[in-house]
Amino acid sequence: MKIIVDAMGGDNAPGEIVKGAIQAAKARPGLEIVLVGKEAEVRAAAAAAGGLPAAATVVNATQVIDMHDDPATAFKTKKDSSMTVGLTMLKNGEGDAFVSAGSTGALLSGGTLVVKRIPGIRRAAMAPHLPTAGSGLVLVDCGANAECTVEYLVQFAYLGSFYAEKALGIERPRVGLLNIGTEDSKGDTLRQETYRVLREAGDGGHLNFIGNIEAKEAIKGGCDVVVTDGFSGNVMLKTIEGVGSFMGKELKKMFLSSIKTKIAALLVKGGLGAFKERLDPDTIGGTPFLGLRKPVIKAHGSSGARAIENAVYQAVTAAEADLAGQIEANIGLMRVGR
Amino acid sequence: MKIIVDAMGGDNAPGEIVKGAIQAAKARPGLEIVLVGKEAEVRAAAAAAGGLPAAATVVNATQVIDMHDDPATAFKTKKDSSMTVGLTMLKNGEGDAFVSAGSTGALLSGGTLVVKRIPGIRRAAMAPHLPTAGSGLVLVDCGANAECTVEYLVQFAYLGSFYAEKALGIERPRVGLLNIGTEDSKGDTLRQETYRVLREAGDGGHLNFIGNIEAKEAIKGGCDVVVTDGFSGNVMLKTIEGVGSFMGKELKKMFLSSIKTKIAALLVKGGLGAFKERLDPDTIGGTPFLGLRKPVIKAHGSSGARAIENAVYQAVTAAEADLAGQIEANIGLMRVGR
Repeated sequence: MKIIVDAMGGDNAPGEIVKGAIQAAKARPGLEIVLVGKEAEVRAAAAAAGGLPAAATVVNATQVIDMHDDPATAFKTKKDSSMTVGLTMLKNGEGDAFVSAGSTGALLSGGTLVVKRIPGIRRAAMAPHLPTAGSGLVLVDCGANAECTVEYLVQFAYLGSFYAEKALGIERPRVGLLNIGTEDSKGDTLRQETYRVLREAGDGGHLNFIGNIEAKEAIKGGCDVVVTDGFSGNVMLKTIEGVGSFMGKELKKMFLSSIKTKIAALLVKGGLGAFKERLDPDTIGGTPFLGLRKPVIKAHGSSGARAIENAVYQAVTAAEADLAGQIEANIGLMRVGR
Repeated sequence: MKIIVDAMGGDNAPGEIVKGAIQAAKARPGLEIVLVGKEAEVRAAAAAAGGLPAAATVVNATQVIDMHDDPATAFKTKKDSSMTVGLTMLKNGEGDAFVSAGSTGALLSGGTLVVKRIPGIRRAAMAPHLPTAGSGLVLVDCGANAECTVEYLVQFAYLGSFYAEKALGIERPRVGLLNIGTEDSKGDTLRQETYRVLREAGDGGHLNFIGNIEAKEAIKGGCDVVVTDGFSGNVMLKTIEGVGSFMGKELKKMFLSSIKTKIAALLVKGGLGAFKERLDPDTIGGTPFLGLRKPVIKAHGSSGARAIENAVYQAVTAAEADLAGQIEANIGLMRVGR
């Protein structure tokens, strides 16, 4: 298993990226890492992280795509960027999956145009695995496609279900359509029509479709996969992050407010740590782009070494799961007439 | 000031509704309450709550709209329901505002068709005031209109801004368009076109438009009014509720996990209480329907007495603010050509 890592993408590149990738290579025997980026910088970062292990190699790429580049064209105009070189290696079979903490838009465009979508899949979708009251929640799409058709949403349902089953090990994942109520007739036209098609897929035994679900119930663990357009999915994702951060800060303020509460903070230190760990995006690592021919994992822009290490493991799991094979075998179910 | 209260709406009607309304009547000299509902039941509930004060009267209504009624037609088919009678009284000037914890859909249909929209306003919107890191956030729309046009969203921006300024006392409320990024070109066509119109309104000095805003930044206190379609607004609202409830439960579990953490819980009891109070929807009371000729306030279905008491105060504030007058005076700004 060989994972290609964009050593130059993200706020903490190359230092933390290289460090995290090396940690993964050391921790998992048999795992090979290819670090793509400005060779001198990557080697310096590797030296700082304790040296490059035998299982890791460096591939030189002289350019870096940054936040000022146009996401739609950056991978083309910067042909020797770490992202473009890495994606091209993935396409050419010189690795099994690609991990990058660089620009989401550039990675999505590059992934779609270099690695390419699986034939019949209309759009690639972003599907983060979020901590919830249950075993977590796959949210698909969460921002790649602001404007969606019924067919996109139906495909997201299958992509999310296959991912939850094969990469996350959830049996017969419960798929819910994000909506503003649970009755069949709820929501806008897009939701009503998608509901009908997914209901048929459920009745046909192709998906474990549980119907419409509200955001609140989804977070309570009411389903394993939430299907929605990239606009509302992104709103849900960012709201989760916002409320988590807001509540975390308020709690901190409360614990710091007096001697009594500071003593309390000491008494619950372990528990609070576990709680934070559970909600920490770094524990999960990254977000897969579903629907591409090979696994591409987007790590958080602010990823530290631990997040990158986990994103590499996630890439391994995604590559082992052979989602593309399953999607190809079932593509006939994912066509929706207009 | 006379507030009409639907004594039969909500999970805890009539007991808690009547109790909360009576509490408000007793607490605020000069405030009159009209309790609409099945007279014998309302009077019994009033007796249980310590008796009907002089400032409260009962108007009999023999029917109740419940969750099994079709929201779109219930207010018509049940002409003698507490909701229909109350809304009709409001329309006829027999009160200054109406509060109900009954069916949201029925109240919205009834409000729109009995009380009616202000001429030129295309849709009424629901605008809850949510606790955030700043002085709170008005979210408009949050579920009344799943499918929106540019004109609806532009009107929501003005409605929310006027409400925040006149009813909540926020000077020059910062209005943000909920989006999946902050650049002008972000989001779907609806967002891009709405952005353009709101930018013009901001440049013209009619609105304090601060541009696109992501859900996370809005929760951090980045703006005072968030404008969006009812679908994504509802997703945001329900996500806030879901994460709040999830984190609350996890914290509780953590505090109950050992003797040490139980002692910690005792030490932070006051602080945790204030924290919960701040996030408690009952503290705010209810959600106004903006764009109607007179104030209609929807209280949570699960409202207890305290939530109803606060919703009554909110109705007083809304009535005093004379939003309708301000909206009428500015309706010319709210027309958007197609």
